[in-house]
Amino acid sequence: MPAFEIAEYQTRIAKTKVRMAAAGIDVLLVSSPANINYLSGYDGQSAYTHQVLILAAEEPEPVWIGRAMDVTGAAFTAFMVPERTIGFPDAYVGVPDNHPMAFVAEYLRGKGCARRTFGVELDEFFYTARCHAELVRGLPDARFADASLLVNWVRLKKSPAEIRLMEQAGRIATKAMAEAIEAIEPGQPQAEAIARLYARQARGVDGYCGDFICKAPNVGTGERAQAVHLHWEDKVHRAGETTWLELAGCRHHYHAPLTRTVHLGKAPPRMEDVAKALVEGLEAALAAARPGATCADVAAAFQRVAERHAVAKTTRIGYPVGLAYPPNWGELTASVRAGDTTVLEEGMTFHCIPGIWSKEMTVVISESFQVTGRGGAPFCDAPRMLFVKA
Amino acid sequence: MPAFEIAEYQTRIAKTKVRMAAAGIDVLLVSSPANINYLSGYDGQSAYTHQVLILAAEEPEPVWIGRAMDVTGAAFTAFMVPERTIGFPDAYVGVPDNHPMAFVAEYLRGKGCARRTFGVELDEFFYTARCHAELVRGLPDARFADASLLVNWVRLKKSPAEIRLMEQAGRIATKAMAEAIEAIEPGQPQAEAIARLYARQARGVDGYCGDFICKAPNVGTGERAQAVHLHWEDKVHRAGETTWLELAGCRHHYHAPLTRTVHLGKAPPRMEDVAKALVEGLEAALAAARPGATCADVAAAFQRVAERHAVAKTTRIGYPVGLAYPPNWGELTASVRAGDTTVLEEGMTFHCIPGIWSKEMTVVISESFQVTGRGGAPFCDAPRMLFVKA
Repeated sequence: MPAFEIAEYQTRIAKTKVRMAAAGIDVLLVSSPANINYLSGYDGQSAYTHQVLILAAEEPEPVWIGRAMDVTGAAFTAFMVPERTIGFPDAYVGVPDNHPMAFVAEYLRGKGCARRTFGVELDEFFYTARCHAELVRGLPDARFADASLLVNWVRLKKSPAEIRLMEQAGRIATKAMAEAIEAIEPGQPQAEAIARLYARQARGVDGYCGDFICKAPNVGTGERAQAVHLHWEDKVHRAGETTWLELAGCRHHYHAPLTRTVHLGKAPPRMEDVAKALVEGLEAALAAARPGATCADVAAAFQRVAERHAVAKTTRIGYPVGLAYPPNWGELTASVRAGDTTVLEEGMTFHCIPGIWSKEMTVVISESFQVTGRGGAPFCDAPRMLFVKA
Repeated sequence: MPAFEIAEYQTRIAKTKVRMAAAGIDVLLVSSPANINYLSGYDGQSAYTHQVLILAAEEPEPVWIGRAMDVTGAAFTAFMVPERTIGFPDAYVGVPDNHPMAFVAEYLRGKGCARRTFGVELDEFFYTARCHAELVRGLPDARFADASLLVNWVRLKKSPAEIRLMEQAGRIATKAMAEAIEAIEPGQPQAEAIARLYARQARGVDGYCGDFICKAPNVGTGERAQAVHLHWEDKVHRAGETTWLELAGCRHHYHAPLTRTVHLGKAPPRMEDVAKALVEGLEAALAAARPGATCADVAAAFQRVAERHAVAKTTRIGYPVGLAYPPNWGELTASVRAGDTTVLEEGMTFHCIPGIWSKEMTVVISESFQVTGRGGAPFCDAPRMLFVKA
C-alpha cells in the first residue's frame, strides 16, 4: 500500500505532465528516489542499483524499472498495476559491460519510443554520467532535455495529507531534540545524545513511529562546532563547550528538521546577543513567509534584524523540505536568500536555518514550517532559544 | 585530525597512482564521498553539494574543492595543508546557471591542466551527467577516461588499521543485533527493535561509540519479509510472523553488516531446513574464503551445499564492504557469484549474505568477514541460526 490515496498520486502526475508539456518533454525519466516515490509510491533502499520511473505524457500510470529482486518491494509500495513494475536480472548488476540503462533503453525502443523527447534529471545524484551515456547510446534517434528539478518544483507545495505527515514528523523532532539536549551534560559521551535522538526518531510519539531519516544528524561540539557538516566524536562533553545539533523527525519519508544550540557553562555575552538576534530574525522571517511574498522577502526580513544586531550572515538561510531519501532532505529548488524570486504559496514548506558557525562562536537555531496566511507555521515546538546549562 | 596516520593516506595514494598510470590518467577527479575520505580523510555530510578530490600523478597531496562553508570541516578532517582545501562561494549552490564543476574546470585551467587526461568516476552517484557535461565544456582540450571504481578496487584490501575499525564495528553490530532480536516479540511495535539498534549503533560497546551508519536497516516483517529493501512499518509484531533484519555497526565510516532472521512461533519444518542449509552454506563459503581462491570459488562452495539441500539461490551472495557513505555500504567492485574471477587476498573484507526472500518463507543469515589464511574470519559474533521464539 502506498502512503497516500491513489488520487493524490494522480494529481501529482497531472501537475508533472503540465511541466513536461511546457518543456516539450514526451517521456520523463525520473532517477531521484524522492521523485520516484512522489509519483508512484515506490519505496525501498534500492537506489544503489540504478532504477528509473518512466512517465509518458499520454499514459495514466508510470512504469518503474529496477533490479528484479526489488519488484517485490514495488508490489508492496507502488500504486501501479503489477505489469508496470519491471525488473532487470542480476546480470546487469555490478558488471562493467552491462548497464541497467542499456536495459531501459531497450525497453523504450520496444515501446516505440526511439524518436521521442526524453526529460532526464541531468544533475540528479542517481543519474550518473554513465547513465546518460548509456541512454544516449541506446536511443540514438531520441532527443534529451534537462528535466533536473522538474518534479522537485511540483513537490514544493504540499497537499493537506503531506502536511499532516510533516506535522507528525515535527512532533517527533521536538521530542527527539528535548531528549538529546537533556543528554548534553559535562561528562556525558557525545554519542549519548545521538543514541537518544535516534531511538526517539524510530519510536516516534503519540502512538506513531518514525520513519528512517535520510541523513545522520549534523552536530558539532567544542572546536568542531564551527564546522557545518560534521558529526559526533568519541569524546565526552566538557564545561565551556558549545554543541549545535540539527536533526529531523520523519514520517513516510517526510522530514521536519530542527536545530538548536547548547552551551555548557556561562555563555559569553556576545553569544547570548547573537542568539537573541537569530531568534528575532527567524521570527521576522516566519512572519514574512506569507502567500505572495518571495523567498527574497523572507531573507530580507531576517537580514534587517541581523544587520540591526551587527550579525553578518552571507549564505542562504533556508530551503524547501519534505519528502526525502538519502543523501539529503533539501528539495534543491528555491533558496531563502536575496535574489530568489520564488513566490510563496500556502502549503509550501521550508527549513529556515539561520546560523553563525565560526571560531569565535557557533549559534544555530532553526524551524521548519509551512506557509500559511498568518505567516510561517512551525512544525516543531521546541523552546526557541540558546540552551545554556550553567 | 584524520582517522588514520598520514602514512596510511600516502600508501593509499601511491596505490591509486599505480592504477592511474596503468590507465593513462594524469589527474584523477574523485566524486565518491567514500573515495574522497579514503584518499584524504575529508569527512562530512556535504556531498549534496558537488565536491571533488583532485589527485594529480606528479603531486604528493590531493586538492579538495567543495562548498566554502565546508572548508572548515576539511580543516578538521583532511590531512592536506590548508591551501589544498578550496571552497567555492554560495553563488555556485542551488542555481541553474552556475555549476560547481564550472568552478572546478576553471581551477584546473588555471593550474595548467587544460590538455591533460582526467580520470572521472562516470558511474558514481555523485558524478552526475551535468557534472560531466560541465567539465567537458570547461576543459574542451582535455581527455576524459572512465575511472569508475578505480579507487574502490584499491579499497578492497584493508590495512591492519582498517581491520581494527571493522572488528570494533563488528562488536557493535553483534550487540545491536542481540538487542533488536530481544525486542522482536508479539505485541511489540516493529519500531522498538529499530530504536534499540539505532541507539546501540551510536552508543557503541566496550568504551567506544559508533559512527553514523550509511543506510537505514533493511527489515521486513510478515508479508513484507519477502521484500529485500524495505523497512519497518507502524505495526506490532504478531505470532506466526517472520522478521529479517540487516544492520551494521560502524566506526569511522567502516561498516560491519550483519543479518539475522526471527520467527515468532513454531517455524515450518521447511524453514528450519532452509536455515540449516544457509548456515551450512555460509560456513562452507567462509571456509573457502582463503587467499588465492576466487570470489567464484567462494560462491561455488556455498552453491554445493545449497544444491544438496535443494535451496535455489540465483543472485550473488556477497560483496566487499568497509568504508562507506550514503546511500550504500557495498564497495561495488567484486561480487561473490559464479564467474567472478577476483582473487582473494589476506585483508580483503566481504559481506556474505545468502538469503531466501519469498512468499513461502524468508530466511537470511549473513556474516561480514576478513579473508585470512584460515578462511573468512567473521567480524561479528551472533549465534548463526534462525531465531525461533515459540
